[in-house]
Amino acid sequence: MTTQEYDIVILGAGSGGYAAALRAGQLGLKVALIEGDKVGGTCLHRGCIPTKALLHVAEVADEMREGSNIGVMGNFDHIDMSAVNSYKNGVIEKMYKGLTGLVASRNVETISGWGRLVAKDTVEVNGQQIKGKNIILASGSFSKTIGQTITNRVITSEQALNMDVVPKSVVVLGGGVIGVEFASVWASYGAEVTIIEGLDHLVPNEDEAISKNLERQFRKRKIAFKTKTMFDHVEEDANGVHVFTQDGKQFDAEYLLIAIGRGPNTANMGYEEQGIPMDRGFVLTNERLHTGVGNIYAVGDIVPGVQLAHRGFLQGMFVAEEIAGLNPKPLNESYIPRVTFCNPEIASVGLTEKAAKEKYGEVETAEFNLTGNGKSQMLGAAGFVKLVREKDGPIVGFHAIGARMSEQIGEGELLVAWEAFPEDLDGLIHAHPSQNEAVGEAMLALAGKPLHNH
Amino acid sequence: MTTQEYDIVILGAGSGGYAAALRAGQLGLKVALIEGDKVGGTCLHRGCIPTKALLHVAEVADEMREGSNIGVMGNFDHIDMSAVNSYKNGVIEKMYKGLTGLVASRNVETISGWGRLVAKDTVEVNGQQIKGKNIILASGSFSKTIGQTITNRVITSEQALNMDVVPKSVVVLGGGVIGVEFASVWASYGAEVTIIEGLDHLVPNEDEAISKNLERQFRKRKIAFKTKTMFDHVEEDANGVHVFTQDGKQFDAEYLLIAIGRGPNTANMGYEEQGIPMDRGFVLTNERLHTGVGNIYAVGDIVPGVQLAHRGFLQGMFVAEEIAGLNPKPLNESYIPRVTFCNPEIASVGLTEKAAKEKYGEVETAEFNLTGNGKSQMLGAAGFVKLVREKDGPIVGFHAIGARMSEQIGEGELLVAWEAFPEDLDGLIHAHPSQNEAVGEAMLALAGKPLHNH
Repeated sequence: MTTQEYDIVILGAGSGGYAAALRAGQLGLKVALIEGDKVGGTCLHRGCIPTKALLHVAEVADEMREGSNIGVMGNFDHIDMSAVNSYKNGVIEKMYKGLTGLVASRNVETISGWGRLVAKDTVEVNGQQIKGKNIILASGSFSKTIGQTITNRVITSEQALNMDVVPKSVVVLGGGVIGVEFASVWASYGAEVTIIEGLDHLVPNEDEAISKNLERQFRKRKIAFKTKTMFDHVEEDANGVHVFTQDGKQFDAEYLLIAIGRGPNTANMGYEEQGIPMDRGFVLTNERLHTGVGNIYAVGDIVPGVQLAHRGFLQGMFVAEEIAGLNPKPLNESYIPRVTFCNPEIASVGLTEKAAKEKYGEVETAEFNLTGNGKSQMLGAAGFVKLVREKDGPIVGFHAIGARMSEQIGEGELLVAWEAFPEDLDGLIHAHPSQNEAVGEAMLALAGKPLHNH
Repeated sequence: MTTQEYDIVILGAGSGGYAAALRAGQLGLKVALIEGDKVGGTCLHRGCIPTKALLHVAEVADEMREGSNIGVMGNFDHIDMSAVNSYKNGVIEKMYKGLTGLVASRNVETISGWGRLVAKDTVEVNGQQIKGKNIILASGSFSKTIGQTITNRVITSEQALNMDVVPKSVVVLGGGVIGVEFASVWASYGAEVTIIEGLDHLVPNEDEAISKNLERQFRKRKIAFKTKTMFDHVEEDANGVHVFTQDGKQFDAEYLLIAIGRGPNTANMGYEEQGIPMDRGFVLTNERLHTGVGNIYAVGDIVPGVQLAHRGFLQGMFVAEEIAGLNPKPLNESYIPRVTFCNPEIASVGLTEKAAKEKYGEVETAEFNLTGNGKSQMLGAAGFVKLVREKDGPIVGFHAIGARMSEQIGEGELLVAWEAFPEDLDGLIHAHPSQNEAVGEAMLALAGKPLHNH
């Protein structure tokens, strides 16, 4: 058994792990990046990237169906899943090549194999001991299944991303981000979709106005959903799945997608044995992402908080800089942007109106409806931009919904993270005719001088 | 002859005029808005809005043609211009209805007729004298024709917006914003297009890297262009147009679009008679948009500067606030964002690298290529984001090119107008996987800590 020593040993090469590796490599540290599957992790291979490819296919299918309304004559025939999968896998492959090239160019040593923490400074992989002055735990997450066995018909997002047919009908269990994205994809592909959600609303973490607008638009798209409805059990036979809810209802479909969230991938990794503080499988850290044990840090989906790839990037870079002694300022997770790519798309950052009221007491809000936005009208995009500010204070919440509105997130993030006042846009104007104008109009409305707001 | 007196009389109800009217009405001023055509002006009826509708049709046609590459099976047959025009006019009609409702709701009195300035405080319209304590000149612009007679085949954007057929071939004279947008539309509709531009590059006002990238992408799209090529004359016969350039070349096509810019609409308006200072047809003002004559202000395309609808909005609101005594701070025109909606789209704000070097001496730049951006890869979007900063100073230029990249302009505008330093994004991260991430990556690169940059 040989031992090699590195400045940093990273356990897992998903978004958090590889970002730490890239930044550490750039800072001249000697890094081992250990991964049993492929560099890139869930996001690139089984998450963000493939779902967004499926969603773009959905968008094009919808536009093709409706093309004649705007003079683009032709016809939509069907979705060819084998071509969809080639396209999707092609995107993954290209990004994966780029990423592996990048990792190599930063002098990061990638070790292929499933690692396990065996001492406070050692990861064992392929029977080899890899020693690090610092260890970063970045073992990621998995789709939760609430105890259901995954079959040909009872699936999680992982199987849903690799289907070779368009389902005729699907019950989607869970109306969060993953659930509504798949519901949106399949509805556009021609499937009958029913979402079952236990809480009051779809995308229940969003501002209530956003949830309600999504529900209205899903209704128009004939995507069925039952909120406040608890799953009881599922039966499966040759005809498909029969989903029973606690209110005694039954929903039949070809498939059941379980999309109730992701759990931390920490079992049998040796974490507990080294005394890493844990809570329901998550790894606990201080605000500097240190576990309190040795020189062991944790990043990404195993750390409690929003499970988003870019949070992993941010945390990974932070820890690399921390280890390099750059003393980065602690991260403020409330500035992490959130985007849901269903149709209509949702973008948000900061606090919902409700959360802002709880925190600040009095708040002010402004909305600009996309019916007043020329570019959105051309796209047939319904929705709005909503801003929330502390009364007489800075903007603390940005919320947008509508076709393609995800891309407004950048400005929203700056407004919230830089604690902008509506007056900070005095003397500025947004570009006409863009969807981005809707953000400007909401800002003008919040400043008490609406331009195109009714 | 009756006389009515208003706080403000506005001559022209395009973007600048109606924005002034809306803001003044909201501030409780008594406003007359005089317009011989329709409220909304060039932008809504013959400019930004209809061109962007044609461009969206082009985008959908391209997606439909290529649908099978991503698994959306079907076929593109042809562009039906009558359906395209219904769609386009439907968008205009909807926005127009909204706008007239808005104008009425702000207690603005609209007077239909062609007005003329007849005294320092009076506009005559329909034989009636309309007196204003303040006058705002907002008479807009027209397509320049360099002395050519407009015919069925030699046209400007106005005719190009209302064609009932897809041309087989067009020569586009002028490679600026209007020229490249129409070239892009027609190429997507199936026409053969040749652009003739006198300067070194297409979109010559953009950063040279943007121009070159556009040229590369247009070449791929088989849009022909000749730069450094001066128009000489055009002949027209039953077969079409024959365009002769000063280098002795000849270009034949069905149509010639003259897209060499817009001139100020100020002839015979009575401006000179009142002593308004003018230069080559433009109305000169001080930095508060005052003409120096009586209480006469000017806004929009008649004032030298970029001729953009949103500049008109900004100036219109400014003058209304100025008249209301709110003492708004002077506008900084270099913060006005610019968007070109051809395929690939272009967005920019602030200085080009060249202009920044001239102003600041040493500058730093960073680029992030969209090949490293997942969402752009899905969309097949080629291009980049380029940032320019004063050496060790703030960001002074934002430039982006690529499919759908126009919508990044909002963040670009804040970065430039708020004089952001790359370090101001420390602790923030852009949402994955969005096109917006490319802006974040460029910022990281500029800060010396590139994440996904090769």
